[in-house]
Amino acid sequence: MNEFHVYDTTLRDGAQQEGLNLSVADKVAIAGFLDQLGVGFIEGGWPGANPKDTEFFARARDELDLRNAVLAAFGSTRRAGVRAEDDPQVRALLEAQTPVVTLVAKSHSRHVTDALRTTREENLAMVHDTVALLRSEGRRVFLDAEHFFDGYRTDREYAVEVLRAAADAGADVVALCDTNGGMLPPWITEVVSAVAESVDVGLGIHCHNDAGCAVANSVAAVEAGAMHVQGTVNGYGERTGNADLVSVVANLQLKLGREVVDPDRLAQALHLSHAISEVTNVVPYGRQPYVGASAFAHKAGLHASALRVDADLYQHIDPAKVGNSMRTLVSDMAGRASIELKGQELGYDLSGQPELLQRVVERVKSLELQGWTFDAADASFELLLREEITGDRLDYFDIESWRIITESESFAAKSLSEATVKLRAGGRRVVATGEGNGPVNALDHALREALADAYPELAEFRLSDFRVRILDTAQGTDATTRVLIETTGGDDTWDTIGVAPNIVHASWIALVDSFTYGLMRRGVPVRLSAEEQPLPADVRAAAVPVH
Amino acid sequence: MNEFHVYDTTLRDGAQQEGLNLSVADKVAIAGFLDQLGVGFIEGGWPGANPKDTEFFARARDELDLRNAVLAAFGSTRRAGVRAEDDPQVRALLEAQTPVVTLVAKSHSRHVTDALRTTREENLAMVHDTVALLRSEGRRVFLDAEHFFDGYRTDREYAVEVLRAAADAGADVVALCDTNGGMLPPWITEVVSAVAESVDVGLGIHCHNDAGCAVANSVAAVEAGAMHVQGTVNGYGERTGNADLVSVVANLQLKLGREVVDPDRLAQALHLSHAISEVTNVVPYGRQPYVGASAFAHKAGLHASALRVDADLYQHIDPAKVGNSMRTLVSDMAGRASIELKGQELGYDLSGQPELLQRVVERVKSLELQGWTFDAADASFELLLREEITGDRLDYFDIESWRIITESESFAAKSLSEATVKLRAGGRRVVATGEGNGPVNALDHALREALADAYPELAEFRLSDFRVRILDTAQGTDATTRVLIETTGGDDTWDTIGVAPNIVHASWIALVDSFTYGLMRRGVPVRLSAEEQPLPADVRAAAVPVH
Repeated sequence: MNEFHVYDTTLRDGAQQEGLNLSVADKVAIAGFLDQLGVGFIEGGWPGANPKDTEFFARARDELDLRNAVLAAFGSTRRAGVRAEDDPQVRALLEAQTPVVTLVAKSHSRHVTDALRTTREENLAMVHDTVALLRSEGRRVFLDAEHFFDGYRTDREYAVEVLRAAADAGADVVALCDTNGGMLPPWITEVVSAVAESVDVGLGIHCHNDAGCAVANSVAAVEAGAMHVQGTVNGYGERTGNADLVSVVANLQLKLGREVVDPDRLAQALHLSHAISEVTNVVPYGRQPYVGASAFAHKAGLHASALRVDADLYQHIDPAKVGNSMRTLVSDMAGRASIELKGQELGYDLSGQPELLQRVVERVKSLELQGWTFDAADASFELLLREEITGDRLDYFDIESWRIITESESFAAKSLSEATVKLRAGGRRVVATGEGNGPVNALDHALREALADAYPELAEFRLSDFRVRILDTAQGTDATTRVLIETTGGDDTWDTIGVAPNIVHASWIALVDSFTYGLMRRGVPVRLSAEEQPLPADVRAAAVPVH
Repeated sequence: MNEFHVYDTTLRDGAQQEGLNLSVADKVAIAGFLDQLGVGFIEGGWPGANPKDTEFFARARDELDLRNAVLAAFGSTRRAGVRAEDDPQVRALLEAQTPVVTLVAKSHSRHVTDALRTTREENLAMVHDTVALLRSEGRRVFLDAEHFFDGYRTDREYAVEVLRAAADAGADVVALCDTNGGMLPPWITEVVSAVAESVDVGLGIHCHNDAGCAVANSVAAVEAGAMHVQGTVNGYGERTGNADLVSVVANLQLKLGREVVDPDRLAQALHLSHAISEVTNVVPYGRQPYVGASAFAHKAGLHASALRVDADLYQHIDPAKVGNSMRTLVSDMAGRASIELKGQELGYDLSGQPELLQRVVERVKSLELQGWTFDAADASFELLLREEITGDRLDYFDIESWRIITESESFAAKSLSEATVKLRAGGRRVVATGEGNGPVNALDHALREALADAYPELAEFRLSDFRVRILDTAQGTDATTRVLIETTGGDDTWDTIGVAPNIVHASWIALVDSFTYGLMRRGVPVRLSAEEQPLPADVRAAAVPVH
């Protein structure tokens, strides 16, 4: 039962990060990614303290199908002078119906008297009673001993007494928290080793990065005997953030030989870290260890030839183990190989076509330099690949022009967007106008309206996600904009991308790709002329997708 | 002579960072800032290998007036089979005329044979000869033992022999390099301690952050006996970067009681770190330990009341010691206490005004439910607070309407946005039009144009960052949009927010807040009527900000 495990607190402590604000849907999505990463426990939030978190646990029960992880609710020990069963905050923890409850408790005597304003004895009773109540209701209980390391310096005996109160009442794990993040590894080693001698309960570690040592501290604690390690994906968290879970896990697994998560899951670390960034909309940090875009990027020069001889001489680990890859100036071999692999995945056999592959590699590289990112937009990549294979763009219509007007109705009230597109399809010139509550929305409506006769198949497409990122922000509103659109068409979902200085233009590119890809996947023929009219609906239903 | 010292390699190893490209003037500017920070040595570059670096050393002699730091030239040991005095690269090192030369040498036997393709013996001779030549020319010599820790694992004896060759020839310091950045602190401690026993020369440490442990590793090496610590400002460097010098120095000085730099200089760390960011044009990392914008920012409402009682309970150090300061973040987790604290920080005494505080708390919570996030937009929060205190919105102009037209020129090519605003200011009705490569850009131009006469102070404001987040993405293009704008106005920078279904409308709200806040901070009076005309520029220059 008390095996070594990883406890993720991205959704609770990570969400304390400045500028990070997660909706309930965001939290559900992130929990799914954390489960794929193979963490043992996911702390979902603080039910009762925060209506969003209460809702999260309710929705998690219906919507989340966790394969590896167990959900934990976070909350506080009971208030002073109140029975645990009468404390609404404690009751909310039970109502979250999670197998695990993690309780935060004061373990620093000055925090007890000065911040909590109660007595040392009452605090011990609060810990004991709350743990006991949760245990009697069948919960597994973890205790976060807040400010433990600072508390241990101030009053060692009291800090340990708090741990004992929790252990005596049946807590499985007591996590020692460096809440202010100021510890250095030797101090962590010393305290964890001493505590392991004096209390008989599983020890955990929870570090913050204020001294730049959160990862090293977490690893030091595990080496000193902790069997539960907390952290957040991408090191999200208040101030300088929490320990970055991917770095901690990778260090333990790849450097210290501990089996922390399944190696196949660790190999998805880069993908999952980036997927979570997309949800949080926090720009990924290029220099992030293991999963940063630059983490295995070599400015060739001096090393270039040696790198080719033996890359291991220049890399601390094989980047594939965390889903990353080496990047150098001489990497077009690797580039061709991965394009070939990607083509295979999409159903195109590109082996034995080095010139084609080289063309695709060069086009992708040049576009990515401008801000395109095809790993988030498979459908746009497939259209690009198809274009290079056939030598032709797939044009379902001939665009003449588009225009969008956005107008205020009054300052504090609303605004309205109106888009007009002019194009040729189905043998006719069409001018159509659509309204929307934003420019992209209006454009989407106008384009559908214009194409409705020639391509009735479009009716089932729906934009299901729309994301915007401003690139090269140093230039403010002059910067490049990247738009990612996810479209759903009944059973399938596809992602397209557009990049342009103008956000509306970037959206237009992604929108056209979205429609084009959806039509192509359904085997819909191009109907530019009057002869190429859509088939009746029942005949269309029997059409077979191209691949 | 061999006292403990800090050796900065921002200009050489830091410049290897992906996307970082320093001109000679940039390097001279950064060297000046490094000197102010109080580092002992500044590695300026590799003369001879790189014409820019050769020029840097020439210009440094004329232009740099270093008060604390000594300049070092970096280069390699002589080539195999050539006398040191005949190697042009070694001669270039002498021609740089620096008091110190730092030589990089192979200390990993496989790198000697496989990468350098010479013999183990010749490599030792290369180290000895080059050090000896430089010493005979009066240079102080430091040796960077490349891949030392990996080499020590592979062939301990040879790695140490390389150090001895340098020491015997007169090197002052041999710096042990974790070139691939894969070490963990206990390994560093073990190796540095062992080496200190077996060679009689000052030891240095040079760490990279690939395992997320560069700061901890550097501190561990110093604790194990290193008297020379290398790093870069802001942790710049190839891949995941080098050890962040400010974190290393702050940990040694503020946590381990070593006097590394003058405390008054350390108190400038935040200013110097940001000044260097301005030169490198790398966006500062908010979560950077000690000097990050978020490093002492507290979000949780839970702590706010206690924070008021004793901030030290919640901070690992006094932020003033590195030139930073505590910030309270306003969010839906905030209660009255944190609003009061935030008010204080902004210069408003709100104590004894519970109703006002309650009103603000409720307004913040209700807005945050709609997607606003004030912890990322201090300026918008201050305008909201001011409005609740005075009962009035601060309107620098009366808006009548705005409109933006975005039009395609052709599909693959460009698009153009044109904005028209109609408003009253300075006693006139103004209709102004601005063009831009996107709707917000156009709106920014139009609004500036419209207000230029009434508020010439706007000319110095510049949008320095622009971020968009689509909220509740389940609804696709019908979703709510949140826009965050950062504006710079000479010495100060402020953040504003806008939330609306329409991205253009959200941008408009954030833009108006940005202009309003900037004008308010400068004490600019509202000039709606014709009588309220701007003062001449020289009078304005003397105006005092409101707080």
